[in-house]
Amino acid sequence: MAYTRTFGQIPGHPEGSTYRTREELRMAGLHAHNQAGISGTPRDGADAIVLNGGYPDDHDEGDLIIYTGQGGQNGRKEQIADQRYEKGNAGLVLSQYEGFPVRVIRGHEEESLHAPLTGYRYDGLYRVVRHWFKKRADGYRVLQFRMVKIGSMYDIQDLGDLESDEYSDSSTTGPVSRIESVVARLARKASVVRNIKDWYENRCQICREAIQLPTGPASQVAHIQGLGVPHNGPDHESNALCLCPNDHLRFDYGAIYLTDDLKVVEAATGTVMCHLYVDRRHAIGLDYVRQHRSYWSQE
Amino acid sequence: MAYTRTFGQIPGHPEGSTYRTREELRMAGLHAHNQAGISGTPRDGADAIVLNGGYPDDHDEGDLIIYTGQGGQNGRKEQIADQRYEKGNAGLVLSQYEGFPVRVIRGHEEESLHAPLTGYRYDGLYRVVRHWFKKRADGYRVLQFRMVKIGSMYDIQDLGDLESDEYSDSSTTGPVSRIESVVARLARKASVVRNIKDWYENRCQICREAIQLPTGPASQVAHIQGLGVPHNGPDHESNALCLCPNDHLRFDYGAIYLTDDLKVVEAATGTVMCHLYVDRRHAIGLDYVRQHRSYWSQE
Repeated sequence: MAYTRTFGQIPGHPEGSTYRTREELRMAGLHAHNQAGISGTPRDGADAIVLNGGYPDDHDEGDLIIYTGQGGQNGRKEQIADQRYEKGNAGLVLSQYEGFPVRVIRGHEEESLHAPLTGYRYDGLYRVVRHWFKKRADGYRVLQFRMVKIGSMYDIQDLGDLESDEYSDSSTTGPVSRIESVVARLARKASVVRNIKDWYENRCQICREAIQLPTGPASQVAHIQGLGVPHNGPDHESNALCLCPNDHLRFDYGAIYLTDDLKVVEAATGTVMCHLYVDRRHAIGLDYVRQHRSYWSQE
Repeated sequence: MAYTRTFGQIPGHPEGSTYRTREELRMAGLHAHNQAGISGTPRDGADAIVLNGGYPDDHDEGDLIIYTGQGGQNGRKEQIADQRYEKGNAGLVLSQYEGFPVRVIRGHEEESLHAPLTGYRYDGLYRVVRHWFKKRADGYRVLQFRMVKIGSMYDIQDLGDLESDEYSDSSTTGPVSRIESVVARLARKASVVRNIKDWYENRCQICREAIQLPTGPASQVAHIQGLGVPHNGPDHESNALCLCPNDHLRFDYGAIYLTDDLKVVEAATGTVMCHLYVDRRHAIGLDYVRQHRSYWSQE
């Protein structure tokens, strides 16, 4: 039977439903394939993933998942090549871009507290909030995705440009509830946003344009090194840039990166496009610039 | 006591907490003012609103609120002037732009099933997802905001570019659950997005630029007339544009609008900037163009 790709919840298959086999999942319309982890294509986007222990770089905290893309492994699940933007990988990037919900299915082979003991379990809808290339210790590059459960606290923190630190931070400051922790972070974030926008008067540090809205000039504050697991970049001016939405998109999706002397490089060609404009009050952290570049540069 | 503006939940004041007076709300740190509906400034953003029956244009469906901005009324709550981007109004626009959560407080004077019988009740965190000017029957322009409760079904539908029709639509198609309704809409939306992007190869209909990402060219599909309450624009190609993120932002925030012959006008000056590029397969609905223009043009 052909698989009909549907985004979101599938009627008759509520969260928590269990399945004995991949074929049952496929027949239920939950996931297109019997082997591949990602149900999706570059043109359609991805509608579902299976977490089943196939990649050691995965990281499952329940409502927050770091998911590794597909490809580059041999039959013994050893990495023998770089992963690329293709098939399901490109599908998950499109789902991030369009905000499509992705069904998460966990299998019993996943080594995680969240895995079912047998078979497979549908665990609800997640959003892809970021992706990047990780260079593994063996030198191969794998694609990774930060996914948060829709409606969870991670989702609330990741709304818009608001992103979370790792929750375990809060253990260092005593018994602080998740909600209180969110409040503290939002307050801190607002001051960084205001400083960056003030310094540049909302002009993009790359194209020098400020978007003129009826309410005044507008820009976006981008983080150089991502906040939250696994990058844990700080929510500080030294890790932030003032960008227009177009250049913010290019920066976050790896179309451009920065050199140590803050030139803007087009990733596809390695060409220097321009100098980043930097206000004298703005001390940009080179460590963050280097980590961002490591995700996207082929070097 | 001075008010400290905090975004998000306030420790010790969970959702559902009740207060006898506006002063109690202020002392609790929930809302800055004893009179004004919006707690916020153009520079800080807005952290809270009170719904208390002050504006007949408000519309409260619980998890979905159409909220009217402040200003332009006399002491007898009669509209005597246009509302403008100022004070709390500009604060709510900034909260939309930055994705700040806004506390919603309902008062007993609100004429709604959702209002408390006495005093005031804190009803949780909402996101501002859109704003526009409404021209009332008496000729005055008021600012309105679509707000959805974070984590609610409306919020899930409003994720990214995905926006909802009115739920009551589903009553015309028989007993369809909310979840099923979401699935159907997402599926429909994906086809509109794909067609629009195909026709324009992701080039912006205004600036003609396609954002080049490592995964390929990218664009955003904008709706001309907003989906969902209260505009109820259709999720159809005739109500959609292919735009770059910068021009999408300008279009949604009313910096530009279209004439009947599809010229692009800068709202601040009334100057024609360029012609909208239109593919021959793309029949744009003039009704939608006119409604969008009615929100933003001063005519």
